[in-house]
Amino acid sequence: MNRQIELLAIDADDTLWTNMLFYHEAMDSIKNILEKYTDTALIIKDLYEIETANISVLGYGTKSFIITMVEAAISLTEGKIKAHDILEIVTIGKTLFSRPVELLDNVKETLAELSQNYTLMLLTKGDLFEQQGKINCSGLIGYFEYTEIVSEKDEATYSALLQRYNIAPENFLMAGNSLKSDIFPVLNIGGNAVHIPHRSVWYHEDVPADEAGRDYIVISDISELTGLICQNYPQKKVEI
Amino acid sequence: MNRQIELLAIDADDTLWTNMLFYHEAMDSIKNILEKYTDTALIIKDLYEIETANISVLGYGTKSFIITMVEAAISLTEGKIKAHDILEIVTIGKTLFSRPVELLDNVKETLAELSQNYTLMLLTKGDLFEQQGKINCSGLIGYFEYTEIVSEKDEATYSALLQRYNIAPENFLMAGNSLKSDIFPVLNIGGNAVHIPHRSVWYHEDVPADEAGRDYIVISDISELTGLICQNYPQKKVEI
Repeated sequence: MNRQIELLAIDADDTLWTNMLFYHEAMDSIKNILEKYTDTALIIKDLYEIETANISVLGYGTKSFIITMVEAAISLTEGKIKAHDILEIVTIGKTLFSRPVELLDNVKETLAELSQNYTLMLLTKGDLFEQQGKINCSGLIGYFEYTEIVSEKDEATYSALLQRYNIAPENFLMAGNSLKSDIFPVLNIGGNAVHIPHRSVWYHEDVPADEAGRDYIVISDISELTGLICQNYPQKKVEI
Repeated sequence: MNRQIELLAIDADDTLWTNMLFYHEAMDSIKNILEKYTDTALIIKDLYEIETANISVLGYGTKSFIITMVEAAISLTEGKIKAHDILEIVTIGKTLFSRPVELLDNVKETLAELSQNYTLMLLTKGDLFEQQGKINCSGLIGYFEYTEIVSEKDEATYSALLQRYNIAPENFLMAGNSLKSDIFPVLNIGGNAVHIPHRSVWYHEDVPADEAGRDYIVISDISELTGLICQNYPQKKVEI
């Protein structure tokens, strides 16, 4: 590998800052409410089905999560849940918007280093309003020359983005925690990808590691990114 | 006025296609449900308060609308509403995502003409996933060189956008139905604006027409845009 990286894009949720953990905490609080009505050990499968159906209609993000939880609570309790408990579920969901942005270890230092030598893009999937709020509160915006919030990270999205920025796929590198969103579609269009797994994987993003032996690098901490890219790709900040 | 327009941005909801009408229809259906529990003649003020509070937390769009309606229904019925009626409210809200995109009169012809002579941008505020869905279904995407979905249309947003596209405010024209979002902030940063009022104005966008005599043009139909711009601004399509 000796490709020049003209654009280095980095995912945000669970790559730069904590995300899934907050959802898990909200889910636990919601389960406590539902336990008054039903056996919550059974709910995961139903929840997955309602959530999957809703993603195609509503998209990603906390607002979709809240609507899914309301529907699931009514369905799983067979309509027995009281209105004040539904309101409590909405309130729990809305607290996700007021959680502080918690940067993961070594993020700030790594971005400070990388931004010296590469053109960085923050490239995140999800709800526009919500992601912009997190980006604004992260204190990281100064390290990124570009910020792109997209509704889905698939081959079509990456291709359109690279075309818009006039970057050949071989000169693009994506780093992130999701094989499904950050790694495989980028490899599929001929780009470069570095996987930084996070301990929490949302089940919608949980795909099997590719067996086809495709060419991507896995690191355990974002701080490894600097040395790794330096070794594998010539450092050059180019005007795009 | 004899400014050259390098970028002509056009709003989408209720400028290019029907939007508020569908919300009003959904609201009527939801009121029918609430009438079983309470006097809905009283609800508009409470609804406005809940919705206003939610916009700052959740942003704009149908998902925010659904969450607002659930909270409002529980609050207005003092918790008496049954779970199955709450589920019905969510379902009514979700049907807004499956409404076909209904273009307003003369939109397609006007865009076809304007795109010959101006660089067009579709510039819309709201939920990313939802707005992208509408844009994709509108059949209009070919007329626009750029599409921007923003979470708020204020001075800061317009300034950042123009800086990113390297356009001076005096060479920018915005056309849309909302004085609050499409006209006043553009004038405030030194840009040009054309107001195309729509019969439905969302109460959050309903601001008094400016008394200060600021310099913007009002037209009653989008088809007037071609002649108006042609008369007031030199026609030139420039590379940006």
